[in-house]
Amino acid sequence: MKAKAKVKPKAVPALVNMGNGLSKEILSGRNPSIAIPLRNLSNVRFDEERSIIQLGDQKQNRHFFNVAMAKKFMQTLMVAAKCKEHIEQGKTTSLRDMYYMVLKTFPQSTEKTVDEQSETDEVAEDLEVALDLLREELHLFADKRGTLVGEIELEDNGDPIDGRRAGSGGWSVPSIVEPSVIKFKRCTAKFILLVEKAAVWQRLHEDKFWQKHKCILVTGQGQSSRGVRRLLYRLVNELKLPLYVATDNDPWGYYIYSVIKQGSINLAYESMRMAIPSARFIGFSSRDPEKFDLPKGVEIKLNQNDVNRAKQLLEYRWFKKKEWQEEIKYMLKTGNKYELQALSTKDISFITDDYLPRKLKQRDWLD
Amino acid sequence: MKAKAKVKPKAVPALVNMGNGLSKEILSGRNPSIAIPLRNLSNVRFDEERSIIQLGDQKQNRHFFNVAMAKKFMQTLMVAAKCKEHIEQGKTTSLRDMYYMVLKTFPQSTEKTVDEQSETDEVAEDLEVALDLLREELHLFADKRGTLVGEIELEDNGDPIDGRRAGSGGWSVPSIVEPSVIKFKRCTAKFILLVEKAAVWQRLHEDKFWQKHKCILVTGQGQSSRGVRRLLYRLVNELKLPLYVATDNDPWGYYIYSVIKQGSINLAYESMRMAIPSARFIGFSSRDPEKFDLPKGVEIKLNQNDVNRAKQLLEYRWFKKKEWQEEIKYMLKTGNKYELQALSTKDISFITDDYLPRKLKQRDWLD
Repeated sequence: MKAKAKVKPKAVPALVNMGNGLSKEILSGRNPSIAIPLRNLSNVRFDEERSIIQLGDQKQNRHFFNVAMAKKFMQTLMVAAKCKEHIEQGKTTSLRDMYYMVLKTFPQSTEKTVDEQSETDEVAEDLEVALDLLREELHLFADKRGTLVGEIELEDNGDPIDGRRAGSGGWSVPSIVEPSVIKFKRCTAKFILLVEKAAVWQRLHEDKFWQKHKCILVTGQGQSSRGVRRLLYRLVNELKLPLYVATDNDPWGYYIYSVIKQGSINLAYESMRMAIPSARFIGFSSRDPEKFDLPKGVEIKLNQNDVNRAKQLLEYRWFKKKEWQEEIKYMLKTGNKYELQALSTKDISFITDDYLPRKLKQRDWLD
Repeated sequence: MKAKAKVKPKAVPALVNMGNGLSKEILSGRNPSIAIPLRNLSNVRFDEERSIIQLGDQKQNRHFFNVAMAKKFMQTLMVAAKCKEHIEQGKTTSLRDMYYMVLKTFPQSTEKTVDEQSETDEVAEDLEVALDLLREELHLFADKRGTLVGEIELEDNGDPIDGRRAGSGGWSVPSIVEPSVIKFKRCTAKFILLVEKAAVWQRLHEDKFWQKHKCILVTGQGQSSRGVRRLLYRLVNELKLPLYVATDNDPWGYYIYSVIKQGSINLAYESMRMAIPSARFIGFSSRDPEKFDLPKGVEIKLNQNDVNRAKQLLEYRWFKKKEWQEEIKYMLKTGNKYELQALSTKDISFITDDYLPRKLKQRDWLD
């Protein structure tokens, strides 16, 4: 796209640099290798000061002259070459397409360069980490998911988007939201509200919650995509807006919040550019059924999966705060979980007119 | 929302009429009942003339004084009452919220009015069919899914949307797209292209396919949602645009197309307002790997599920056309399926610059 082609991509020098390093090694008769940071649990740590999950310093050298590594070495260079080509053409590609672009059979053989997409996916993540680039900067995208409305005007690839006039459907958050594509123009919002579920987002949008409370309303439709996380990061850091997160009251809802706040184990190397330690959990909390006098019958019994997951969360370093330990333990004690939509038993717009305003006013959130 | 409140809803008279009928029966001492059309395979037929799947005439009477029916009778009236309330308030609700709104426990008892959401979902479908209304007219919505860009300007709940300036993310198709919410303003498109996959949509959008070929580009992200189907129906019928459908080359892709064209068995009662018999299947066809000289290795072996499903499709009345029988049989013969993205092995923009233009020009589609 035009807007993208204009930007000076820092990925190209990084890729060229990697290539030059390799050719030097080859020309000097050495075994060419690339240093890839390890991306497993043993190399992940919680940075207490910054309050985010980070990748450690362990690396592995991927050599060409090594039977176990030669194929992966080749794949790494094939994907790197394709990325460079796409960035220079100003085109982006899905991970699935990348798989097909790298897939070839060797002449006079049925042996393939790649057998499964998971191989090229992994290599793409290797490149991200090794070169300290975002996947988006390599012009790779995952499926987009997530919608936004509210008090902000922005530019999406040169097109003006007004969050206050984005229709009932809202603006669909693309998977690449770097400043080269998305520019913030004018913001009259005082905060951002992220809701887990599209149906809750729809309710709040229909009730014009964002207008009454001057905010930006986003849904991630479950676990937020990288596009949504990166957009929230940019909104929070560039526009200095507080972020509130509303999920269902179950261990998966807690975790959705914690990924937004501290980052995830899988994508620990992205935390620096995606985690939002200032994010606050505005609900649904285990204490809310009493606080808001919910009728009986709307609770859902925790199943064994839920209980196990809750116990795991209790052990995570980033859930060790007193209020979170209490929150999760209270859920386990009652044996119940709740959906945000259980609030609808009170009234269709209870969440808009009562629940959220009251929580915001009383600063009734978990940090 | 304002725009909705302005419209005179035909659902309210229908609901009131049902209620009046019941109260007459009660006042005259009869056993009150509602006639609900049967929604199972035995009551579905393929209308050859119109070329759509339709619901037959079989009905069942749901009585109040009948142990097996009393609870469902009560649920039907509870959901009907809530729908009327919401339409009058100008509010819409998700099926999940509807479940919670109807969920109560009886005094001095733990017995609930509803145990599972599936019960209220079914009752909502009953009301749709019995009253000959769209779910959307009852102000109920499912999660939205699907995105649009291209040569059309429309109004979404009073907000102007320009498909040519909808950003890289595109306009997110809402789940309710009735004329009261979505108004078509100006259309410069010559046709509509629906693609199954978001990543393919992204590729075509980035390459500005819609601009070069003057079209509207929509993705349903898998099986199209009711919102997308209804919007396509309106675009085809109100703006007289031809519709082309591009899916992966597998039995599920064929079926996605056939639901757009003839309707589905589950939602047979919606065919009249959603099926688009003029829709054309532009690919991916089993003959394309040869026609477009795809390299070896990009094929995927059919698994047993695929084979079984393909054989089922061969038996459906609406796949009995000669070219479809050949298409499916050829897939079974080769034992392979393909993703549209396999075209990327040729070139990242092969689908935009070569595949689709050639198919359109040569009228190389299945009907």
